[in-house]
Amino acid sequence: MERYPSKLIDTAVNEIAKLPGIGKRTALRLALHILKHEISDAKALGESIINLRTNIKYCSICNNISDDDVCPICSNKSRNHSIICVVEDTRDVIAIERTSQYKGVYHVLGGIISPIDGIGPDNLQIDSLLIKAMSGNVNEIIMALPATIEGDTTIFYLYKKLKNYNILISTIAKGVAVGDTLEYTDEITLGRSIINRSPYQPVKEKENSI
Amino acid sequence: MERYPSKLIDTAVNEIAKLPGIGKRTALRLALHILKHEISDAKALGESIINLRTNIKYCSICNNISDDDVCPICSNKSRNHSIICVVEDTRDVIAIERTSQYKGVYHVLGGIISPIDGIGPDNLQIDSLLIKAMSGNVNEIIMALPATIEGDTTIFYLYKKLKNYNILISTIAKGVAVGDTLEYTDEITLGRSIINRSPYQPVKEKENSI
Repeated sequence: MERYPSKLIDTAVNEIAKLPGIGKRTALRLALHILKHEISDAKALGESIINLRTNIKYCSICNNISDDDVCPICSNKSRNHSIICVVEDTRDVIAIERTSQYKGVYHVLGGIISPIDGIGPDNLQIDSLLIKAMSGNVNEIIMALPATIEGDTTIFYLYKKLKNYNILISTIAKGVAVGDTLEYTDEITLGRSIINRSPYQPVKEKENSI
Repeated sequence: MERYPSKLIDTAVNEIAKLPGIGKRTALRLALHILKHEISDAKALGESIINLRTNIKYCSICNNISDDDVCPICSNKSRNHSIICVVEDTRDVIAIERTSQYKGVYHVLGGIISPIDGIGPDNLQIDSLLIKAMSGNVNEIIMALPATIEGDTTIFYLYKKLKNYNILISTIAKGVAVGDTLEYTDEITLGRSIINRSPYQPVKEKENSI
């Protein structure tokens, strides 16, 4: 075990190093950075972390992080509420919103099924999705989950629960990334992109945004 | 600017992203990690940061971070107080202590001279080093500063201040890292290692630790 010259450093380094992707060495670098700056900066950082966790709210409809009981997307009348995009977490909502290609609403699962991490269907926001499906107001559910075994497992689980509600279940396209050369695309992605090829459309896809 | 679904997220992400080497995307990942864990974890992290900055003390002798007025190294009678190793910050003390090769004491400058970052001699703990030099109790001062232009500038500045005190001023050896092949050593380091070559010693250096 590393010996630090102060218990305060030791405590801070151990707490910071609990964050994902941050080791003891980086944590020490961050702690020394904090020491070199104003007390007010350290307080702003520390309090923002405590406030975030203590006061966070979730949208009662889509389960996304929100300042209000209903998030701005769910309360937006100009969005298409009959199309629901199912995502793992808030980051995916931000990423899809950034594309400006989607005008439906979201449903945040809060994770994906992953037995290795001890996450089963009961840990996710699945019941609330089924209630929406039962309402009869939903035409399409788009599965925008990671292209991993866990993502595919979750999609299959949700598909079995949803298939009897006369709702179109779709998944986002998998294929060669825009700007990528075929040479550097992995074989599985390239193989799928050939199997799932589509007729050439000279019209810009942007004009078809939903 | 990125739009986050909550002001709490926005504040936390902006504060976390002020840390060196952490961008907005990583900060968001860390914020979501904090949200997935217990309130007590977030409080432990936030409070450890605030406590660190608010309650930190520095050794009145060597300027290293310390829980007490005098750090364990400076108050250790079995260490050689006539040899002072000058370092940039606490991390260097930890790194040198880890080698178990050094039994002298330290002097932490709190930085190195770097005009680009606006750090001049007045921002560093130089006066207190000169007072130690003037005391007549110091035989050797080892400059263990980074092998950079800023490190060399600082060494030269200190050398000019210290050269009249009849103290041996030394620098740590620069050369090929143990375990490195010559092929992958940069030319400047390799060049210096040839110029500063030393007679071959079949005895293990470990036995000569100071």
